[in-house]
Amino acid sequence: MPESLRIGVAGIGTIGGGVLKLLHENAEILEERCQRRLEVSAICDIDRARGADWSHIPWFDDAETMLREAQLDVLVELIGGSDGIAKTLSESALGARKHVVTANKALIAHHGTALTRAAEEAGVTLAFEAAVAGGIPITKALREGLVGNRIGRVYGILNGTCNYILTAMRETSREFDEVLSEAQALGFAEADPSFDVDGVDAAHKLCILASLAFGCEIDFDAVHIEGIRHISPLDIRFATELGYRIKLLGIARLTDHGVERRVHPCLVPLVNPIAHVEGVFNAVVADGDYVDTTMYEGRGAGERPTASAVVADLVDIARGRVVPPLGVPTKSLKPIPKAPMERHRGPYYIRLMVRDRPGVFAEIAAALGEAQVSMEAVIQRGRSPEEPVPLVMTTHETEEASMLAALERIQGLDTVVEPPRMIRVQTFKAPPDAAV
Amino acid sequence: MPESLRIGVAGIGTIGGGVLKLLHENAEILEERCQRRLEVSAICDIDRARGADWSHIPWFDDAETMLREAQLDVLVELIGGSDGIAKTLSESALGARKHVVTANKALIAHHGTALTRAAEEAGVTLAFEAAVAGGIPITKALREGLVGNRIGRVYGILNGTCNYILTAMRETSREFDEVLSEAQALGFAEADPSFDVDGVDAAHKLCILASLAFGCEIDFDAVHIEGIRHISPLDIRFATELGYRIKLLGIARLTDHGVERRVHPCLVPLVNPIAHVEGVFNAVVADGDYVDTTMYEGRGAGERPTASAVVADLVDIARGRVVPPLGVPTKSLKPIPKAPMERHRGPYYIRLMVRDRPGVFAEIAAALGEAQVSMEAVIQRGRSPEEPVPLVMTTHETEEASMLAALERIQGLDTVVEPPRMIRVQTFKAPPDAAV
Repeated sequence: MPESLRIGVAGIGTIGGGVLKLLHENAEILEERCQRRLEVSAICDIDRARGADWSHIPWFDDAETMLREAQLDVLVELIGGSDGIAKTLSESALGARKHVVTANKALIAHHGTALTRAAEEAGVTLAFEAAVAGGIPITKALREGLVGNRIGRVYGILNGTCNYILTAMRETSREFDEVLSEAQALGFAEADPSFDVDGVDAAHKLCILASLAFGCEIDFDAVHIEGIRHISPLDIRFATELGYRIKLLGIARLTDHGVERRVHPCLVPLVNPIAHVEGVFNAVVADGDYVDTTMYEGRGAGERPTASAVVADLVDIARGRVVPPLGVPTKSLKPIPKAPMERHRGPYYIRLMVRDRPGVFAEIAAALGEAQVSMEAVIQRGRSPEEPVPLVMTTHETEEASMLAALERIQGLDTVVEPPRMIRVQTFKAPPDAAV
Repeated sequence: MPESLRIGVAGIGTIGGGVLKLLHENAEILEERCQRRLEVSAICDIDRARGADWSHIPWFDDAETMLREAQLDVLVELIGGSDGIAKTLSESALGARKHVVTANKALIAHHGTALTRAAEEAGVTLAFEAAVAGGIPITKALREGLVGNRIGRVYGILNGTCNYILTAMRETSREFDEVLSEAQALGFAEADPSFDVDGVDAAHKLCILASLAFGCEIDFDAVHIEGIRHISPLDIRFATELGYRIKLLGIARLTDHGVERRVHPCLVPLVNPIAHVEGVFNAVVADGDYVDTTMYEGRGAGERPTASAVVADLVDIARGRVVPPLGVPTKSLKPIPKAPMERHRGPYYIRLMVRDRPGVFAEIAAALGEAQVSMEAVIQRGRSPEEPVPLVMTTHETEEASMLAALERIQGLDTVVEPPRMIRVQTFKAPPDAAV
């Protein structure tokens, strides 16, 4: 049997604790599966109290010292943050020819390509299964399971906090703020929820998925990002009436204009399985030219599912199974242009608050017509003359630039009393290449 | 760049043609992803006409001759059948230290453990991603993505033909035979449909999944198998009314009595995502102690999805990523006893056809009570004195042996005019270890 794989864990918070627990509790089956022991040789954290349960493992207060002094094969980086210690430590580890396993989506989203290059130069691996969709083995599916395919599109529910909030808003007809407070009290949302509810966390994951799917550099800045703060129970109700769920999706797609990368709330038809993924669950759909549509669902966060993903990476390393971190060597990454959001095409859901007055609808229809936007369905009800009432429309497929032009005209109308709400509809027609 | 991986393909039918097409069409991206060419060095089939499109590839009429004369690294076995040429050829290839990739579920279900031993002895790989759930990379998920977990349960919709038939029966309220004929005409069912509709094909896949999940030998004979021929539109309608879908599931579970392996129609609650997997799609759910519940969905058959899985195995071999075919070396496989089906516990759906006569219900209730089976819900309607009417019940959790005893008593009653229909209800409570 080969020697133990010597692991150093930097950051003993929730995830770090979960990784240590898994490696301890399932040590025997892991040894059978790897034909090798996974040995935690050192741990470090700035807070000594966190090491209380693990006093038999050599402890370091400083991660760089651990890296220099402990005999390690792999560094597990669970410190977090896109820059600072997480970044410099990962660079140091790769420079010292240690494999790096991380759950840090911000780090990979911002510096993944550069870190991958550093890993290639050092002849070691950078692995980040836990950084995308938690326990779901989606980086492995894209890099290995679907490796025979040209991937045309990858999309999913990438943030459990947002999905929990949207599910609870729908089930209980409550406002965003109220459900967010509840989610915070239950531990499903952070004290500062902005990374989650403003779509940044989903965007971190999406740009990593896009790189794996299309073989391009990880480009966080190319992601169009909208969060869910403006979603109202009213929109959720109308969506349900129209046969949709509102979901925060991350969507990456190869188009004629380049790679589209976007995170925003969507109306998803109930016939799409992803519409039924509720609560804190995540799901990722990948469409390949041979495999057609595949979907992967599971818990996207939390101590234990994330630990499952970190350990899967450690096992790959222990088994000597090395794959390029981005699916191809970095020199083969393609410079695919960013598709501009204005060129996006699709149907739209629009909700206006209008004064219930004769001629209103004609004015709005005219504004849409001038911008070449054609309506598909309209809902207007709750008549109360001169009071604001909701007017809801869905459009046929149109270009985002036209839709925005129409909304600007509409917003200028006297009878429209609030800024229009626009939510994109995602019908997910089969991509042209995926016919089976 | 290392030398090409030299591939021989035995059997150029639908799947073989798909594999050759994929390797040809996506050759460039495969070379980038493997840093190595995947070269088809030889093909063989008993029918020369099938090679017409591939005349530039050396052709053999006989597979053993190809194995001896062509310079191959890998044999792709796409002949089919659990014995005969597929088996002897695979044994010859492994004996000659060639890797073997196969889509042949019958072969692996019956001889997978022995073939794995042969591969170990020869120091080569046996890979069969395409044998389970077609394009869904589920063997990779179990062996690698979820490798850190103790898997407590794996189950799924493993046969697209049955799922298509059950979906069509529900959507159109037609009888099994009629929908089967239509499925045959559309190419979704074979001329001899028995392997599919009697549950044998799903059982092949299930016993492979059970081995990967629990680290035991592949044991086809241990699978309890029931098909879908007896499912009627009446039962589908009652199931819908009660909040369920009828699905043919394969279920493998670790219980106190050993490994339960069973394939049979189930009532699945609509809240379970697998209830919404419709038509020819397959889905597999795996529950691990750390990752909790994960689900994988996609096309379970067909030329292109199956080719996707075969090529994924070829890429693993080209990349030098070798994992024990059953997740652990065969010497570490555990002799876990087979859980007897009579010990199975769960709720049941029962449909009786009874004469609509006073006292009928009291007799049936007494028969259930004597067998210690307690009712949960009852539906009786459509009164027409002395004519047979359906009487539908669901029970609380009970042991299969008790349920069968109750049904025997019930069948003996004068007022019960047809053999009772029993369908197991699968509620899929979280396994005790999977709390998160």
